[in-house]
Amino acid sequence: MQGQQLETAKNGHLQLNGVDLVDLCDEYGTPLFVFDEKRLRENYRRFSGAFARHYPKVAVCYSIKTNNNLGLCRIMREEGAFAEVASLLDLHVAMKAGFPPERIVLDGLYKPEGLLREALRRNLLLINTESFSELELLNRLAGEMGCRPTVGLRLSIYVRKFLNPEELYCNPLSRFGFPFEDGLKVFEKARKLENLDVCGLMIHPYWGIHQFLPLVDQIQKGLDVKIDFINFGGGFEKASGKIGFPDLVKDAIRQRLGMKSNLDLPPRKVREIEEAGRLVAAEVERTLGNKDSTLVFEPGRYLVHDAGFLMLKTCLVKEAAGYKWIVADGGTNLVEDYLERREIRVVNRADAQREELVNIVGPLLFARDFVTLKQYLPKIQEGDYLILPNAGAYTLSNSTQFLNPRPAAVLVGPDGDVSIVRERETSEDVVRMDRI
Amino acid sequence: MQGQQLETAKNGHLQLNGVDLVDLCDEYGTPLFVFDEKRLRENYRRFSGAFARHYPKVAVCYSIKTNNNLGLCRIMREEGAFAEVASLLDLHVAMKAGFPPERIVLDGLYKPEGLLREALRRNLLLINTESFSELELLNRLAGEMGCRPTVGLRLSIYVRKFLNPEELYCNPLSRFGFPFEDGLKVFEKARKLENLDVCGLMIHPYWGIHQFLPLVDQIQKGLDVKIDFINFGGGFEKASGKIGFPDLVKDAIRQRLGMKSNLDLPPRKVREIEEAGRLVAAEVERTLGNKDSTLVFEPGRYLVHDAGFLMLKTCLVKEAAGYKWIVADGGTNLVEDYLERREIRVVNRADAQREELVNIVGPLLFARDFVTLKQYLPKIQEGDYLILPNAGAYTLSNSTQFLNPRPAAVLVGPDGDVSIVRERETSEDVVRMDRI
Repeated sequence: MQGQQLETAKNGHLQLNGVDLVDLCDEYGTPLFVFDEKRLRENYRRFSGAFARHYPKVAVCYSIKTNNNLGLCRIMREEGAFAEVASLLDLHVAMKAGFPPERIVLDGLYKPEGLLREALRRNLLLINTESFSELELLNRLAGEMGCRPTVGLRLSIYVRKFLNPEELYCNPLSRFGFPFEDGLKVFEKARKLENLDVCGLMIHPYWGIHQFLPLVDQIQKGLDVKIDFINFGGGFEKASGKIGFPDLVKDAIRQRLGMKSNLDLPPRKVREIEEAGRLVAAEVERTLGNKDSTLVFEPGRYLVHDAGFLMLKTCLVKEAAGYKWIVADGGTNLVEDYLERREIRVVNRADAQREELVNIVGPLLFARDFVTLKQYLPKIQEGDYLILPNAGAYTLSNSTQFLNPRPAAVLVGPDGDVSIVRERETSEDVVRMDRI
Repeated sequence: MQGQQLETAKNGHLQLNGVDLVDLCDEYGTPLFVFDEKRLRENYRRFSGAFARHYPKVAVCYSIKTNNNLGLCRIMREEGAFAEVASLLDLHVAMKAGFPPERIVLDGLYKPEGLLREALRRNLLLINTESFSELELLNRLAGEMGCRPTVGLRLSIYVRKFLNPEELYCNPLSRFGFPFEDGLKVFEKARKLENLDVCGLMIHPYWGIHQFLPLVDQIQKGLDVKIDFINFGGGFEKASGKIGFPDLVKDAIRQRLGMKSNLDLPPRKVREIEEAGRLVAAEVERTLGNKDSTLVFEPGRYLVHDAGFLMLKTCLVKEAAGYKWIVADGGTNLVEDYLERREIRVVNRADAQREELVNIVGPLLFARDFVTLKQYLPKIQEGDYLILPNAGAYTLSNSTQFLNPRPAAVLVGPDGDVSIVRERETSEDVVRMDRI
């Protein structure tokens, strides 16, 4: 559950592993990312254990792009994670965080030639490909460089959901991977490329397992090959709590009918990881008849999301047009998705009753710079610190320098020791690449 | 019109002020931002001339956040622009680009105490405030520091349009400024703050002029004061071409009916700047009876948007699910808004016929990492360079380092001289603030 690791001290301040979070904000300034080392390590152990208890050969690859902070990546590596990279930057980060090349998997819709060359030079564990032109390029480069990389094919099972405007244009996911229905044919063709050891198959997310494994079986038997790497990608979030357009419409109707606005719905339940571990292992054994292949997983959000918090300061409290506006010192420059259901709390008065419906916004001067909308909070005063849980994934690595330099990040250890894993930027840092 | 400054050379390559853009991409690599110095300067002159021809006292303040590149800011300063800043970073950039403090206006929904102190210390031209708590803080700081800043009040005329999902929650614009209807009352109260010279009024965008000027008149006469600064904010884009949700629905219905998809609509016409200049000057004189106040404008997009181009390389061409996908080496990390209508062209084959309906996507591995959807283009080959016009505003200053370091930016001078205004980042630049 989100923010469960926080405790309320006698003075009403929230604590993380014994560290007073008000003191932390005072010392390091806000905005501030705070990462919980204990939760990070627990997440990894829970995830890898869920699969390793039921299956002998498992590679859990931390998806570097989710949060590429070197300090967090280092902890994942210490726990025994492999790494999943999808760009030269990712690979640079993974190497710098100490992942050995033989524990790195390369993914991505397209990979520049420089990235493929680097992957070959370092002899990565596995390169997952998504188009035939990429396979041909890789084959040519491998020939030139005199090596024989281990290669997988990513297959796409795509479902069009019409949940987002862009699905009126196209099926946005269909661009990834090879079409699922072409799997056998593409695999057969790829096996003929003389410099590649094509022995991996991938889907992402893992929910397609009931369609996917029969195809793996068919390919193994039909082509008399061994699929060494069965790659299930990611999609293992513990709890997905997003407010969707239907929720908004429902709530707008409630208001029109004079009913109380209510978007504080509980997060949608998703499958527990233990159950996923049992299911995947059982399905693999049942469908393929053995446990010989290595199962590859590429979690990101599962490992880091609830281990990350964003601390903000309330800079202005304002009433206008019938709304209570809380203006904080960080917004969509740091946490993009205001539709994620996050239970925001007041750090310095953690036991205060929630009594007001507020909109929290950031400092960016965009209409859409929201932190959250319609959340019940205690009566907020200027200077209050706020804490956003579930701020570990796609935040720091996807942040901007729009209007403000980026914040620092600290790691709180299990015993309450605090270390900086990212220094706060100055204004001069933002313009250091500019030439006047 | 977008991209009008591009010419097609005999070899079929696009040129900007005589510079072969294929050569530019080859030399500096892609992605690459390219800025047209001639267009930048013309934009400024056209804008300031439109108002200055009809009114004696005009301050055109370049909105730094729109594109805070030092090279571009320096050009604006050379042209005689003032600067509008909204954060300590903006102020740092403006000073570094050579704007003197007496030509800088400070805006923003809230301003941290450090920013207000800096503004007072440097004695900026004007500080526009948006809440009474801010006025009180500023009054206290001015007292402490023994100065008397020139202060404006931003008033909000807000209209709820229900065009976006978040308008089901709230009126997102209502948080900015003071409610328009409280204008007189707030002004009267603000005038009593002993350390402030409250003599400015602001609205943004300028379209509310017919409501705004009568209030200025009422305040001047009713309170027997002189409004020295009448601030009209921004909102002067030359052409607004956005594909909206209604366009998408219409197009989806067309397709269902078996008609040809067509989102290549002409951009919506907006008022020409010459007309805006005449209108504003005439309205001010008619309503206030004189031309004594300084008119302040804060354009951003108008000045830089069509002076900026983003050059991308086609990395992969792929057909899937009935769509043609063009995967480019830059996407929403660099240009956020794929719903802006941009006429994308092939740089190396500018005269090729448009014949295919394609979706251009970026390298980010998000479903929504789109450059554009449903655009007719010539048949694209891997390695083709693409050029996106209208890429000057809210692109570089709002970019991320997600998956890839940020690109270089070059300035092409009127005579075809090329200079770097931003160096390309390396992977190491991205993690330089990280501590392992």
